[in-house]
Amino acid sequence: MPADLGDTIELAHGGGGRLTRRLIDDLFRPAFGAAPDDLTHDGAVFDVGGARLAFSTDSYVVQPIFFPGGDIGSLAVNGTVNDLAMCGAQPLYLSAGLVIEEGFAMDALRRVITSMCQAAHEAGVRLVTGDTKVVERGKGDGLYINTAGVGLVRTPAPVAPQRVQVGDAVILSADIGRHGVAIMAVREGLGFEMTIASDCAPLAASVLQLIEAGVALHCLRDLTRGGLATGLIEIAQASGTAIGLDEAAIPVSEPVRGACEILGLDPLYVANEGRFVAFVPQADAARAVAILRQFNDEATVIGHVQHAAEFGSVSVGTIGGARELDLLTGEQLPRIC
Amino acid sequence: MPADLGDTIELAHGGGGRLTRRLIDDLFRPAFGAAPDDLTHDGAVFDVGGARLAFSTDSYVVQPIFFPGGDIGSLAVNGTVNDLAMCGAQPLYLSAGLVIEEGFAMDALRRVITSMCQAAHEAGVRLVTGDTKVVERGKGDGLYINTAGVGLVRTPAPVAPQRVQVGDAVILSADIGRHGVAIMAVREGLGFEMTIASDCAPLAASVLQLIEAGVALHCLRDLTRGGLATGLIEIAQASGTAIGLDEAAIPVSEPVRGACEILGLDPLYVANEGRFVAFVPQADAARAVAILRQFNDEATVIGHVQHAAEFGSVSVGTIGGARELDLLTGEQLPRIC
Repeated sequence: MPADLGDTIELAHGGGGRLTRRLIDDLFRPAFGAAPDDLTHDGAVFDVGGARLAFSTDSYVVQPIFFPGGDIGSLAVNGTVNDLAMCGAQPLYLSAGLVIEEGFAMDALRRVITSMCQAAHEAGVRLVTGDTKVVERGKGDGLYINTAGVGLVRTPAPVAPQRVQVGDAVILSADIGRHGVAIMAVREGLGFEMTIASDCAPLAASVLQLIEAGVALHCLRDLTRGGLATGLIEIAQASGTAIGLDEAAIPVSEPVRGACEILGLDPLYVANEGRFVAFVPQADAARAVAILRQFNDEATVIGHVQHAAEFGSVSVGTIGGARELDLLTGEQLPRIC
Repeated sequence: MPADLGDTIELAHGGGGRLTRRLIDDLFRPAFGAAPDDLTHDGAVFDVGGARLAFSTDSYVVQPIFFPGGDIGSLAVNGTVNDLAMCGAQPLYLSAGLVIEEGFAMDALRRVITSMCQAAHEAGVRLVTGDTKVVERGKGDGLYINTAGVGLVRTPAPVAPQRVQVGDAVILSADIGRHGVAIMAVREGLGFEMTIASDCAPLAASVLQLIEAGVALHCLRDLTRGGLATGLIEIAQASGTAIGLDEAAIPVSEPVRGACEILGLDPLYVANEGRFVAFVPQADAARAVAILRQFNDEATVIGHVQHAAEFGSVSVGTIGGARELDLLTGEQLPRIC
């Protein structure tokens, strides 16, 4: 193991940025023997008994457990539903594993379970199997939830960074930054003029509609930990391309922009839980945007894949010039999901 | 919610006994709208794209993380492999979700990951997708792991408590109690004359061999939290039958028996991580035992399904008479898995 992995786990190893990447590249990937890009994708795709399936998991440790626009329960359902959708799959079945701290309020647990059921209903998936563990006081933080999900792949071709092509349009499904700002505002005790609600929502319906319309989906990515910037950098690196974005085209609501200024956050790196980017051929872009606008009228093309680039890059064009985006080194927003 | 569910979560809610059952029956089952016995089974079975799949999950919070005969990594792989096998499925793909406490030693993480890979290799499954979260010091206990798994069902008929029939032989795959005693011995700092190693092991190979031999598997259950007694009580209740066991036939090694006496534990309730019971027609019993003895020569018939019984029951015949087994009320062995 390279020495620079450090002697102990730091918060930033879970932040989705540079240290998370190093953990994957230097520890998990060599151990699991994964193909180069398996582990930076949202889920695995494989054939079983003649069916092409997607399979994904995420653990949720968000703090606080309840926040404007959702809670750990809806987050845990939508997060895994969205990871499956990003594989071009129709999410079908979910598992839930709960790790509860001794002393957690039964009423809060009931609220979370109710929220999970409602989110599953809205996303069209079934919670079919589960597990509950209880740990002593001081060995948890109320409630952690893991969900895993199984979906049926609906795209004729794989949806993966490797399929990104020069000329592809980069479409963003809606405005960014709401989830991260909603969590940070509660956590820091900030009262903004209007409450900013998390964008936590299922994305499968919009993806399935793109598939049904025959839009050639080269790559999909939901913009969770690390936000739009991290998602695009990972795709640029995995596909060996240079992605150019137009900053003015990236929708950020005024309340989110204001809150980010107060909190010292760059909205491009703030987590979302109901937003994604789609890489599609330019010829399909207008049609794809029109479909996505049925779900959110801020859906728009924010950039293009400009040329091949050995190590991958993402640049953002502004009025004054262009800046290069890079993976964050530290932990910007601990326990945002 | 019934008032007797209590106001807060207690350790016993995660113990696999009476309170776990109440949590499932009074909170999870009504919320998830599950069929009566879905949630007390080891996994879910469903059809996707023409394939009949099993899907299961478990979170692992075992303390200590390393113990004789295994660690949280091998436990997390084998536990989910075994849950799939208990559905009559060939385990194929696993996910892993890690919740790591800040400050956890990188070297310990590497050992656990190596152990997971080795266990996966031995069980013939692939770890294909994962997730890592980091929580602050004091909000975890080193490392918690969730695994979920997908398998392909290989039995011609369902394997479930509902298929248990009067006259079925109850076959135990090997001696019981090793895992729980191994953990408790380390935790309590007890040095026994010989170190007792956990029985943590994959069970899929033996189950698949029973299936290939055409043994009619009515029900399978691995004997984890709550041990042999809890597993059989759940099956008796779900199938509406009275199960009679012969205590003298239940293999318990001398070291485990001695340790249980010192620790004040009933081996029938002690957790195992590589042991299971199979309910098969009496006509198939000898053949099934012969197959299981290829894996462990202590495999044996320990009892039979005696008659229908509205609420289900499990009795153990001893030289002096018979005693009825019941679900445990408290938490016997916290964080045993």
